[in-house]
Amino acid sequence: MDHQTIQAKTGLEARRRFRENDYRGQTSGVAPGYVQGNLAILPADLAADFHRFCHLNPKPCPLLGSSDPGDPHIPALGADLDIRADLPLYRIWRNGEMVEEVPDITTHWRDDLVAFVLGCSFSFEEALIDNGIPLRHIENGTNVPMWRTSIQTAPAGPFRGPMVVSMRPMKPADAIRAIQVTTRFSAVHGAPVHIGLPEEIGIADITKPDYGDAVEVKPGELPVFWACGVTPQAVIVEIKPEFCITHAPGSMLVTDLKNSHLATL
Amino acid sequence: MDHQTIQAKTGLEARRRFRENDYRGQTSGVAPGYVQGNLAILPADLAADFHRFCHLNPKPCPLLGSSDPGDPHIPALGADLDIRADLPLYRIWRNGEMVEEVPDITTHWRDDLVAFVLGCSFSFEEALIDNGIPLRHIENGTNVPMWRTSIQTAPAGPFRGPMVVSMRPMKPADAIRAIQVTTRFSAVHGAPVHIGLPEEIGIADITKPDYGDAVEVKPGELPVFWACGVTPQAVIVEIKPEFCITHAPGSMLVTDLKNSHLATL
Repeated sequence: MDHQTIQAKTGLEARRRFRENDYRGQTSGVAPGYVQGNLAILPADLAADFHRFCHLNPKPCPLLGSSDPGDPHIPALGADLDIRADLPLYRIWRNGEMVEEVPDITTHWRDDLVAFVLGCSFSFEEALIDNGIPLRHIENGTNVPMWRTSIQTAPAGPFRGPMVVSMRPMKPADAIRAIQVTTRFSAVHGAPVHIGLPEEIGIADITKPDYGDAVEVKPGELPVFWACGVTPQAVIVEIKPEFCITHAPGSMLVTDLKNSHLATL
Repeated sequence: MDHQTIQAKTGLEARRRFRENDYRGQTSGVAPGYVQGNLAILPADLAADFHRFCHLNPKPCPLLGSSDPGDPHIPALGADLDIRADLPLYRIWRNGEMVEEVPDITTHWRDDLVAFVLGCSFSFEEALIDNGIPLRHIENGTNVPMWRTSIQTAPAGPFRGPMVVSMRPMKPADAIRAIQVTTRFSAVHGAPVHIGLPEEIGIADITKPDYGDAVEVKPGELPVFWACGVTPQAVIVEIKPEFCITHAPGSMLVTDLKNSHLATL
């Protein structure tokens, strides 16, 4: 993969550079220390149910902020933030089918659209690395492995379906420390939902993820499972809304919030 | 076993009843809510090294308080506390051999003895039960299973040796919650030291504990391991001091401290 690298000192600088140029890549590692978020944009007639779905399922759907209907700004998440242009790449969905990937959604914007920004694992992964805990998918330069599980989300209106989890293999002492560290980050998925026994949550083959890339669980390691932001995307696509927009995988919204400010305790 | 049950409203009441009568049994469940502690009494020439050993190994040896040499009182742990008479049953050791079990050590007391009181798992087990986490050894009415491990303590003077751990089997979600709950109780062993893979810490057979009674690890459960207060006792006995005194297993010092007050966060 031919990387073009973007480096920014702040979330604001990152958003302005994405807005102004044609970078369409990942945001991992851009503006270190700043909170990044998953994006879901829905018509207002689905927004109330989706808001309730997030409230009922805070671990897979930690809501960082949302817009007023038709308003592309979310001041609580960033100064001069324009949700229509500030991400590197968006996906346009019609009736549950991805129809287009575009670097700007201004021409797609409608007066009835509501933007939801959900916390993502980048924030707690930064804290895990700061604690000296190795993360294999980052060492490998691959996407974290993810699975649909037998854990069901709490339904709200049409939104329902299985929780998707991400998995990071760790030595047991690191897993205990990772539980402590991520407990401090309830705004970005929080503590793991499961550890050690994949079959207990309906994962038949730990070597074959449903999304992302496989990583090896080495002897002396346990698989540790976190609720994943792919959950709401999978749930939204499942109900085939006539129209919706999401970020393209890995191309997140970079906010003005600091990861260190999310930590409780 | 023919139980004589002692029930007390406070630690002070419990200590006075043990001092005044001939009860020689366990203290589990006596004075609910009050912190109980392991007791080790050593000659002053070993006390400084043992104090340092506790400081270096806070998870197996969480020091709640200690006496001045020759002083049988520890006011920080209890009003009117007499360490020579306030426990139900003591063990007298000479040259590493247990020579006697007695309900009072007043006649054994010496001007050079220092008493150490170390936190015990009763405090965090109360918190786990309050959190709805079942503890099998308590349901079974047996002692918690314990093992010597391949984890070495940090040595101080003559004190050195393997960490002893206790094990409680739990469902993965309960194990994650138990890590959160016991992290709050660093004064009484704190978070687990290991989870899920007994062979990684030198435990060859999870059905055969070195101390205490076996409990079943059922399908869908993980073994969770905490540093155990038997560690310092095993370390002390190993160096064969000419004289020392400990509590008899399960017959702890009941203090005036409340478990709820130990919780940080």
